[in-house]
Amino acid sequence: MAIQKPTRKEQQHLQSFYMLAMEEDSSQLAKPETPHNMEAKADEEERDPESNSLCQPLLKRNTTLSSTPLALVGAKVSHIESLDYEINENDLFKHDWRSRSKLQVWQYIFLKWVLAFLVGLLTGLTATLINLAIENIAGYKLLAIISFIKEGRYISGLVFFTGVNFLLTLVAAVLCVCFAPTAAGPGVPEIKAYLNGVDTPNMFGATTLLVKIVGNIGAVSAGLDLGKEGPLVHIGSCIAALLGQGGPDNHRLKWQWIRYFNNDRDRRDIITTGSSSGVCAAFRAPVGGVLFALEEVATWWRSSLLWRTFFSTAVVVVVLRAFIEICNSGKCGLFGTGGLIMFDVSDVKVSYHPMDVIPVIIIGIIGGLLGSLYNHGLHMVLRLYSLINQKGKLHKLVLALTVSLFTSVCQYCLPFLAQCRACDPSFSEACPTNDRFGNFKQFNCPDGYYNDLATLLLTTNDDAVRNIFSTNTSSEFQPTSILIFFALYCILGLITLGIAVPSGLFLPIILMGSSYGRLLGMAMGSYTNLDQGLYAVLGAASLMAGSMRMTVSICVIFLELTNNLLLLPITMIVLLIAKTVADTFNTSIYEIILELKSLPFLDANPEPWMRNLTVGELADAKPPVVTLCGVEKVSRIVDVLKNTTHNAFPIVDQGVLVPGSVATEATELHGLILRAHLVQALKKKWFLLEKRRTEEWEVRQKFNWVELAERELKIEQVAVTLDEMEMYVDLHPLTNTTPYTVVESMSVAKAMILFRQVGQRHLLIVPKYQGAGVPSVVGILTRQDLRAYNILTAFPHLARSKGEEKDS
Amino acid sequence: MAIQKPTRKEQQHLQSFYMLAMEEDSSQLAKPETPHNMEAKADEEERDPESNSLCQPLLKRNTTLSSTPLALVGAKVSHIESLDYEINENDLFKHDWRSRSKLQVWQYIFLKWVLAFLVGLLTGLTATLINLAIENIAGYKLLAIISFIKEGRYISGLVFFTGVNFLLTLVAAVLCVCFAPTAAGPGVPEIKAYLNGVDTPNMFGATTLLVKIVGNIGAVSAGLDLGKEGPLVHIGSCIAALLGQGGPDNHRLKWQWIRYFNNDRDRRDIITTGSSSGVCAAFRAPVGGVLFALEEVATWWRSSLLWRTFFSTAVVVVVLRAFIEICNSGKCGLFGTGGLIMFDVSDVKVSYHPMDVIPVIIIGIIGGLLGSLYNHGLHMVLRLYSLINQKGKLHKLVLALTVSLFTSVCQYCLPFLAQCRACDPSFSEACPTNDRFGNFKQFNCPDGYYNDLATLLLTTNDDAVRNIFSTNTSSEFQPTSILIFFALYCILGLITLGIAVPSGLFLPIILMGSSYGRLLGMAMGSYTNLDQGLYAVLGAASLMAGSMRMTVSICVIFLELTNNLLLLPITMIVLLIAKTVADTFNTSIYEIILELKSLPFLDANPEPWMRNLTVGELADAKPPVVTLCGVEKVSRIVDVLKNTTHNAFPIVDQGVLVPGSVATEATELHGLILRAHLVQALKKKWFLLEKRRTEEWEVRQKFNWVELAERELKIEQVAVTLDEMEMYVDLHPLTNTTPYTVVESMSVAKAMILFRQVGQRHLLIVPKYQGAGVPSVVGILTRQDLRAYNILTAFPHLARSKGEEKDS
Repeated sequence: MAIQKPTRKEQQHLQSFYMLAMEEDSSQLAKPETPHNMEAKADEEERDPESNSLCQPLLKRNTTLSSTPLALVGAKVSHIESLDYEINENDLFKHDWRSRSKLQVWQYIFLKWVLAFLVGLLTGLTATLINLAIENIAGYKLLAIISFIKEGRYISGLVFFTGVNFLLTLVAAVLCVCFAPTAAGPGVPEIKAYLNGVDTPNMFGATTLLVKIVGNIGAVSAGLDLGKEGPLVHIGSCIAALLGQGGPDNHRLKWQWIRYFNNDRDRRDIITTGSSSGVCAAFRAPVGGVLFALEEVATWWRSSLLWRTFFSTAVVVVVLRAFIEICNSGKCGLFGTGGLIMFDVSDVKVSYHPMDVIPVIIIGIIGGLLGSLYNHGLHMVLRLYSLINQKGKLHKLVLALTVSLFTSVCQYCLPFLAQCRACDPSFSEACPTNDRFGNFKQFNCPDGYYNDLATLLLTTNDDAVRNIFSTNTSSEFQPTSILIFFALYCILGLITLGIAVPSGLFLPIILMGSSYGRLLGMAMGSYTNLDQGLYAVLGAASLMAGSMRMTVSICVIFLELTNNLLLLPITMIVLLIAKTVADTFNTSIYEIILELKSLPFLDANPEPWMRNLTVGELADAKPPVVTLCGVEKVSRIVDVLKNTTHNAFPIVDQGVLVPGSVATEATELHGLILRAHLVQALKKKWFLLEKRRTEEWEVRQKFNWVELAERELKIEQVAVTLDEMEMYVDLHPLTNTTPYTVVESMSVAKAMILFRQVGQRHLLIVPKYQGAGVPSVVGILTRQDLRAYNILTAFPHLARSKGEEKDS
Repeated sequence: MAIQKPTRKEQQHLQSFYMLAMEEDSSQLAKPETPHNMEAKADEEERDPESNSLCQPLLKRNTTLSSTPLALVGAKVSHIESLDYEINENDLFKHDWRSRSKLQVWQYIFLKWVLAFLVGLLTGLTATLINLAIENIAGYKLLAIISFIKEGRYISGLVFFTGVNFLLTLVAAVLCVCFAPTAAGPGVPEIKAYLNGVDTPNMFGATTLLVKIVGNIGAVSAGLDLGKEGPLVHIGSCIAALLGQGGPDNHRLKWQWIRYFNNDRDRRDIITTGSSSGVCAAFRAPVGGVLFALEEVATWWRSSLLWRTFFSTAVVVVVLRAFIEICNSGKCGLFGTGGLIMFDVSDVKVSYHPMDVIPVIIIGIIGGLLGSLYNHGLHMVLRLYSLINQKGKLHKLVLALTVSLFTSVCQYCLPFLAQCRACDPSFSEACPTNDRFGNFKQFNCPDGYYNDLATLLLTTNDDAVRNIFSTNTSSEFQPTSILIFFALYCILGLITLGIAVPSGLFLPIILMGSSYGRLLGMAMGSYTNLDQGLYAVLGAASLMAGSMRMTVSICVIFLELTNNLLLLPITMIVLLIAKTVADTFNTSIYEIILELKSLPFLDANPEPWMRNLTVGELADAKPPVVTLCGVEKVSRIVDVLKNTTHNAFPIVDQGVLVPGSVATEATELHGLILRAHLVQALKKKWFLLEKRRTEEWEVRQKFNWVELAERELKIEQVAVTLDEMEMYVDLHPLTNTTPYTVVESMSVAKAMILFRQVGQRHLLIVPKYQGAGVPSVVGILTRQDLRAYNILTAFPHLARSKGEEKDS
């Protein structure tokens, strides 16, 4: 077997290679903003001596733990941030929480459901629009080709076919390259990262949405080997994100109701809803959509979210169903007839003979091997493409157009290789057909004969799948035709995903898998009595499991695609075998893409060696934590904000009397304050002339929760006069008094589980010692600190012990 | 509308009423063991003065926060404990973790899969056995009745019918009452509580399993209004638990491999697998089974568990499928023919007219109302029954037998009320039928006529559902017959669940719901063109959603039951409407049973007022925490173990030098030690003559991880001599050094989320102050402390503010 598994070390090498390439490429972003550079600079500046005596100084120290939050998104290096999924319980929040009237609570709940409804409705409408556009554009194109062929004008046909596809690809690629680089590719890995807490920039904008819709129509109509499934997931998420924030970035609704949703937590929920609506719209599979979001995309899940997600997929299905009803009456141009079931195979009688177990196992094993091989190949190709794509916009365009040309030429010319076959009078369908549909395309054959390869290649991808899945058709396709088809789509599946157009992963895998399955069925010949269409379905399922490594959701999606419940037991066995086999070689395709894009995704399971390291040791390897006092001098705040990139600072009060004791003086950990709130305090000039605690009403006059939810403001936009620099700010009311904490003796493994389970951005480390002179906070952990790669860079001996474990 | 919603206060009143009743009933359990009584007693005894000076004294103080862990399980008061789902990272564990060879890791993973396979296999076999037994017993019984009727011996038929049912119920009830009281009822709420971390005693024993199997066969064959679904979930879980621990309590396998699973964490996973296998076996619904476990039963979920659960349901389906194949060849006696689909309605053509939306909405709304009404009624009946059941075994038996008599008499006599209907020659089936099956039972009618009510009542529950679901049969049933059936099963559904036999909730609800749906379909008459069988399916779904409040899992279960994918969109709408309507009135039936049994289930969502209370305030209301020193005197350990019921104690070292500082003396929070490990240390006589820290090798000679996993040992079983009392124990190596902690300023709401999300048993509260004289630990939170009811008892003003919120 030629499968070569890239070791973890190789992958890391690769990753660091990318990071280097990126940093060179965008040095204006990368270098000056790394935290320790910042702090080194900070030290050169003069600081207020008093603040230093009160709180910890910003010591100059070498950091060994990298925390540069850079990632490659849409082949562009971006500065990424984490999301705040935790509830920021400061005094203002608590007051707002207490004072929310019953009406407001109901408004909020009602709006949640309205949003879920709108997400479903709009995703359903968009999916219908995309389907209509693709079927019509591709349909008229194919009809034109058929008439060229009929007239014997083969060369003109080739030129026309290639030209139209070239133009369609050009439109898609230009849009992607010039207006929304993040719209390229499937988008599912980025959404997965977002729901894990990684804020990839420009993912959910209005431009991205539009480019994704138009680009996807172009790319799919151009006959490229890609589907509309991944893009629809992204489209659903974009629609959800835009609805949640009340419109595009610059033209947001200022409506108070919408403002309730101006926080990362609610945005996460609504994007989850959007992603499952997208899957549902792509496969007309409502339960499969919910499960896909649950199994693959989402990191956090609550049962109330399950319910709301289910509601929005129900809306999508009703919308789709209504449009299918309308289209069945012929008002949608070339949009095909058909019901909710995309690839109906419900007429196959499944009989379970013990003999049938063997081919089922073989399908699973080979599917798993092929899946992991595909992942490996795709990984290589994407590495190469990313080097090409980095060279500039023109390179991206040329790459996309080359792939389009290659695809068109192959699709047009290969059918000439196939032998014409005589129509069998026992066929139930018309034969030969010159329509878009039907299993028996005449193409270049004489009357009474058909070209089986043209049936598969000169059609839309959806129809090709339908034809391969078609049951009781064992004599219709020749093995060589299916073999040519399989070989072509293996190549196309590898070279198409990385180009700069919106592309989905599902359909290429289904095309490859179904042809492989059918081929296997032919090879089994008379050995089994399973239908060849069934083999195709199982082959597609096995390759999906082998590449994407999902189980329950693929199973349900296939159930909803094929409408044959009796297939369920064998589908389950195939999926389990394929996933098990593939898992021994490499990780799922989404994880590979996440790693290639260097998105700091946090895995569910900590590495075993993380149990041997404490968070205290981790904190020691980082620069010391920067703390602020409860009532802090303005100059110190400005200083800290300008010279660090940290997004939160612990608030520690000195010399506090412990309640209950007479004269015990102690330091008090008051909580954690966000950078955004510090900037807000400066902008609002929430300054005090003397050092004192404020009352709640004073704060409430100055701030409201709507303003505190804004995160956009930068410290550079705030002007502070020299006089004001000497004043004080009472940070207590703005401080989140309930940050999650871990004791320094906690193992990194358990801290990571906590971090991920409760959706954190900053995790405070408190000392295990209690006494005078012990600091209140030992460190802060962020997402970057908990990533295996970063920890191993700082603690090479762990990598060594890990290596030993592997070798032993 | 006559729906009366029990307010929270009423429910609490009820609950406290039960608690009182219990305490009176079992005063030997309840009173002497409440913690504050214990500590009061402890204070009266003499204690070593040194240990007091070293560590905190056991102060006498009034506790205001109740933490009596008592619950009503199987109508018996039990002392319940929480489970330890957290990994106990002590030195021994860490050493074991480091030293586990690759082979052992593989053994562990392999065994996990083998166990999942065995769970599926055995659950599948047991389900087949139960099905075979029920179908044959009930079948021969019904055939005998038919021959009595045929001969006109109506009274003898009644006596025979009632007598057989009486005997069958007697067997089931005697077994339940005498051998395994926990086998009564559905068992799903207890499993739900177990997976939430509540260890209900005697739930998963071998006796329980046997009684559940035999009792369920008896009860279902007796024609009682209950199903085998809930019991099968319990049976699956029992099988899983027994496999995981290597056999029944007294005859466990001592095999090393099995010992890996001797911890609460792995047991939780395997029981989750078992519960979904049970649902799968009950409904022949593999995906539905997985989703049921995910949506309703499990509290924690990981994607790897999803996969393993899916594997075991796949095994169940294959086993079922194989047996169906065998039975179809006639080797199973009266076991019916038929495939994997229980209630196939795939031949209905679903056409969506806008007019059909209105009946669908009406079904949903009325289903929701009926569901919440049913929950309310069941709540009342269960309260009453629990009073009767508490009076003794004889009362329990009499109650069960009375219900059986009532059911039998009604089932036999009511068909005489129905009018005989003439057979229509256009019927496709034979008419009239005298067999067990068929829609047209002759019963007391002349030839050429049939009794439609006998078709529904004198058959097994499964066949009754099949008959009501039957499609294209709009003229076969008379409205009065369906009405009588509906009214009867409403009454039976209320009075049957609480009796002392293994009973399921699904089937009664499906019976009630399907007849309500069909009735509604008849009432709609010619208004819609939906089939009446379809109305029955939708009615059943709406009542399930209205009573159990699940959505996705019911939807998939119904999909797998009826094999009609086109029903999906309308089923979804019905489910959503029914759940929404019902949720406005009361909670789900499982939550009602959990509350009645006073199981300390932790909800996913904290109450809003929990944000206004900090864990520090909660800790103040509890007795002060009992801490131990790292090297502790034996006498003090014995003292603490004998006089408290706490299951874990923080280890705090005094006068430790802080690393990095020169002369800072501090106290150090070393971790948390479990009661079981303290007892082990005493039993193993792990004593030191002087006060010193030990080396790792010393400990490892004395203990291994297998022994540390044992939790059964009691302090009363350990004898310590007076000499030994003066010696020391080094607790450091046995201490879990990485307990989760919260700062005292944390809000209860967030602490509860943490507690639930990471599966805790003890959550340490550390102070927010840092200084000399500040204690290292402020308190410990357990499951009981975080329950809303207990907090409200200790802080009545929160209840008041809550009430005001409600009123305003």
